[in-house]
Amino acid sequence: MIQVLQPGPAAREETVPPIRLAIVGFGKIARDQHVPAIATTPGIALTAIASHDGGLEGIPYFKTLDHLLSEGPQIDAVALCTPPQVRRAQAEVALAAGKHVLLEKPPGATVSEIAPLVAQAQRAGRTLFATWHSRFAPAVEPARAFLAERTLRAVTIAWKEDVRIWHPGQAWIWEPGGLGVFDPGINALSILTEILPRPIFLTRAELAFPANRAAPIAADLDFSDTNGLAIHAEFDFRQTGPQSWDILVETADGVLVLSKGGAELAHDGKKLVETPEAEYRGIYRRFVELIAGGMSDVDLVPLQHVADAFMLGRRTLVEPFED
Amino acid sequence: MIQVLQPGPAAREETVPPIRLAIVGFGKIARDQHVPAIATTPGIALTAIASHDGGLEGIPYFKTLDHLLSEGPQIDAVALCTPPQVRRAQAEVALAAGKHVLLEKPPGATVSEIAPLVAQAQRAGRTLFATWHSRFAPAVEPARAFLAERTLRAVTIAWKEDVRIWHPGQAWIWEPGGLGVFDPGINALSILTEILPRPIFLTRAELAFPANRAAPIAADLDFSDTNGLAIHAEFDFRQTGPQSWDILVETADGVLVLSKGGAELAHDGKKLVETPEAEYRGIYRRFVELIAGGMSDVDLVPLQHVADAFMLGRRTLVEPFED
Repeated sequence: MIQVLQPGPAAREETVPPIRLAIVGFGKIARDQHVPAIATTPGIALTAIASHDGGLEGIPYFKTLDHLLSEGPQIDAVALCTPPQVRRAQAEVALAAGKHVLLEKPPGATVSEIAPLVAQAQRAGRTLFATWHSRFAPAVEPARAFLAERTLRAVTIAWKEDVRIWHPGQAWIWEPGGLGVFDPGINALSILTEILPRPIFLTRAELAFPANRAAPIAADLDFSDTNGLAIHAEFDFRQTGPQSWDILVETADGVLVLSKGGAELAHDGKKLVETPEAEYRGIYRRFVELIAGGMSDVDLVPLQHVADAFMLGRRTLVEPFED
Repeated sequence: MIQVLQPGPAAREETVPPIRLAIVGFGKIARDQHVPAIATTPGIALTAIASHDGGLEGIPYFKTLDHLLSEGPQIDAVALCTPPQVRRAQAEVALAAGKHVLLEKPPGATVSEIAPLVAQAQRAGRTLFATWHSRFAPAVEPARAFLAERTLRAVTIAWKEDVRIWHPGQAWIWEPGGLGVFDPGINALSILTEILPRPIFLTRAELAFPANRAAPIAADLDFSDTNGLAIHAEFDFRQTGPQSWDILVETADGVLVLSKGGAELAHDGKKLVETPEAEYRGIYRRFVELIAGGMSDVDLVPLQHVADAFMLGRRTLVEPFED
């Protein structure tokens, strides 16, 4: 994992007031996950919202980030929950205004656009945090520790969900840069690249594009590592009925199954972890720590694998998709 | 530009014998460019060839790299001129056998597969050189120096060639990982990212795929940088008649035109550089230097932009292409 951890110019004092945070882009993920996580995280407080999608009672509301910065209350940081296609420009504006920046996943619409933001944050002495919420799932760290000491035989990933349930009316997800099925699939890749002991690389990909859409609805992927580990992943947005967010690792010491997106872990059928998820609380706890320590945390590896899949992937056309 | 320059365990003596080099993959680029460049570069000698495409009179010939390594004459280094889809595995085998490795462009079929090779080369104390031949064109360094001191207004790239002339019967170029029109287009990107003073990032792309092919035949790209520079690039494989490999930069001090793939440079119509190209001699001179200095040189930025273009690009279908 590539991680940028840069010491900033000055660490904060112990007794500083809470970080005043604005959410930019108040869509489903902001309402469902960010608001309750911020409310239960010490050291940070929701102070404003900038969004075309409306706000929250009692919180100062602005249509755009620019309006918020020019007319709003003083803030220290922004959480960018807008679609990835517009996030780079917003991050640049926020950093230029002296704000710390939290990026929802994926961190951008391209890999290349992130390095200049890292440099800008470093120059400004501000925190840039590219979040991967699935890495904060409770079974991820136990899975990493288990696999670090084992001989791995094969990995199978099934990440299959019903796009109509999880992304209702999100037109941006089907546009260039929206990534289609890789929007959830990148969560699997963020976990996989955290728990495996060696870096991986894509060796084959097939991407199924609906005839009327600019992003794939399904992907079939093979990866390997320098030990020749066989990793097979299937991402699919067309799953109805039971949903699958599972990573199965065959080892010389039995089978490890990480399921429910990282909430559960089992070894040869025996439950090791079964914990309600609190991923976004982990994210905000980490954001507060990073700001206090004057550090950034930007890992582009999961997005790199997605870019590789688009570059190496064979495209097939499948039936049109209508919301 | 990201450049990996790692000091190796021991520099060579001044009076070492020539580096014994094997070419792996003896297709058009190997015959047209590598052989004459090696022949005129001091310190390196063509010692063997491994290829399915036949060899060269007087040079020991083997069908595969494995045969060459097990049965062939002693060699010190390999130049991998095979298609990008098979190059990573060959580089891994060659490094494991203690050979220095030169990679034709692009360095791989994915970005992610290169980092493990860099680490392997470092561990083995061997040189890994990811070449970008267009960066050795005579006008590139003068263009970089000119632009370093100027205010830039806009960049326009036209990289348009007849695929039937330059890639006759190269089926791999139309397969996943072959990159289609980005195979020449990445040359433009390798120059652009060398001569511009700031890193760039893609903001929009349209990729035209022939209905019967897995790789694009044309691409229309917009890039920008942290100063908001407008960069427009058109890559096209369908150019008949005059061929274009031109980069035009409008500056506050007039227009700089780098043409003929980097062989010529003009400022407001006045020729600054007009030199016969000797790109591959530059490559082999550099390879000899890197090996002597115990260093590697791996810059993934041009390939990163191509991966970004595949990820962010909107696909259009165009008429089938037949060779």
